[in-house]
Amino acid sequence: MILTVTLNTALDLTYEVPALVPHTSHRVARSAERPGGKGVNVARVLAALGHETVVTGFAGGPTGDRLRELLAPLPRLTDALVRTEAATRRTLAVVDTGAGDTTQLNETGATVAPDEWTAFRARYAELLTGAAAVALCGSLPPGVHVGAYADLVRTARAAGVPVLLDTSGEPLRRGIAARPDLVKPNADELAGLTGSRDPRRATQDARRRGAHAVVTSLGPDGLLAATPDGLWRAAPPGPVHGNPTGAGDSAVAALLAGLVADAPWPDRLAHAVALSAATVASPVAGEYDPAVLADLLPKVRVTQETP
Amino acid sequence: MILTVTLNTALDLTYEVPALVPHTSHRVARSAERPGGKGVNVARVLAALGHETVVTGFAGGPTGDRLRELLAPLPRLTDALVRTEAATRRTLAVVDTGAGDTTQLNETGATVAPDEWTAFRARYAELLTGAAAVALCGSLPPGVHVGAYADLVRTARAAGVPVLLDTSGEPLRRGIAARPDLVKPNADELAGLTGSRDPRRATQDARRRGAHAVVTSLGPDGLLAATPDGLWRAAPPGPVHGNPTGAGDSAVAALLAGLVADAPWPDRLAHAVALSAATVASPVAGEYDPAVLADLLPKVRVTQETP
Repeated sequence: MILTVTLNTALDLTYEVPALVPHTSHRVARSAERPGGKGVNVARVLAALGHETVVTGFAGGPTGDRLRELLAPLPRLTDALVRTEAATRRTLAVVDTGAGDTTQLNETGATVAPDEWTAFRARYAELLTGAAAVALCGSLPPGVHVGAYADLVRTARAAGVPVLLDTSGEPLRRGIAARPDLVKPNADELAGLTGSRDPRRATQDARRRGAHAVVTSLGPDGLLAATPDGLWRAAPPGPVHGNPTGAGDSAVAALLAGLVADAPWPDRLAHAVALSAATVASPVAGEYDPAVLADLLPKVRVTQETP
Repeated sequence: MILTVTLNTALDLTYEVPALVPHTSHRVARSAERPGGKGVNVARVLAALGHETVVTGFAGGPTGDRLRELLAPLPRLTDALVRTEAATRRTLAVVDTGAGDTTQLNETGATVAPDEWTAFRARYAELLTGAAAVALCGSLPPGVHVGAYADLVRTARAAGVPVLLDTSGEPLRRGIAARPDLVKPNADELAGLTGSRDPRRATQDARRRGAHAVVTSLGPDGLLAATPDGLWRAAPPGPVHGNPTGAGDSAVAALLAGLVADAPWPDRLAHAVALSAATVASPVAGEYDPAVLADLLPKVRVTQETP
């Protein structure tokens, strides 16, 4: 099984309104609830791809109960979240159906108590014994120390489990130094880490900081990967229209699947780019369109570059 | 005890952001949850004023559980809500602390099943036997027929319990025809009912449609009341700065208290205007500042007008 860790899970709400006009009142035309947080999204995509997955991290309060209720019916996905006293945060995407654009409002997240962090560490160590790979995803909630991901990377490496890290800021900086197998920053996160806006330079710089491989998301332009097998670029055949929400999480899911299969880098990257694009093309945020995936997969251009 | 009915309860969320900018992402600086829906708000104010209150209507799902959890610790307030299969709606107020203004997003509400409506009718009849007055407040959820308030007014009258109706649109039109003791529209609701934007004319017109008394909220200008004792106007001594959220519900609470005490109309109206103003002045939405209430009460100007 593949383990995903989401320390700052969320109950994701989506509200559709014909037009979002600040300082007025709106009747929400349609609303939806989904289990959220990066690692939860990654697990949902992996499970849809046919992988047995286990979700851990934290959930609490009525929002946490609702999140777990929404996870329960998903096949191939096991809930191993640790209960917190504090309630799980919500995120809200207000979709302006007229403008075709989204306004995002994210709650900060509830504070994790010291004994809850201890309980999580024990659960994590236990789950690693059965894991083919682990992904550490998203922001840290209040109460969790900034070096937490570095600790979790070291624990996974000590257990011999390949580990992917997808976070930003100081937790990313410290986590990379603990030598994860793979990190997947986007251009902004990479610039924050390295100070460089040149994706080639920054990706290779990030790898020198300790990661075995760095795969940088370039948004609609695809992926750039600095790996032990060289520097690779993978790009979709053309622009894909739709909702980019969840595209990054789908790329992480494909990279994890490739890590577990020990697939060649060009195959991993092609799959990640095609799955991302199929997620953008899906009308439902965070899900992928299997027909688009099958169509795009052979069309992704993967090229090796000189470092 | 005083009974309040909220068929379309809500879990009210408030998000504070430094500036609401459509099509961007926001970190919510502060968030709060409150039990909501007009009748719930009215009951909270009545309980704070010292009255024993009972809250009925519907609540369901994790949001309904949370609403009830928030009601539980309130003194003098008893939860007699009927459980629904569907989840209670949320409302969201996004407070732009820079602009000092609010953007409101209201979910529609869950559908009430026929057997849930039957269960509510039985609970309502039972609760009326111990009620000194009843208030029917707010919008109707999906699944409840448009003449529901008219039916509930008739049941209250048959039980000899004075009944206040605070709603809008077709439910208000039908409810008035069932001869409630008091309706409290605002100028917009009144214009929708009568077709007139002249508050004097529209208030008297509304009374002729069946209500024993009509108290129209004129916002910062106070109240206008068409009663069996004549036409009255009540106005605060000057403008009150703050958050008008809940001011209308506070006026309803004061009018209910006056109805139960059978107080003279000038006293009822002065109390309603002062309590509304004290609610606007309170830093917490929907609560009132007792010092402001005590200060303003003797200063409210109540004048009788010729019809």
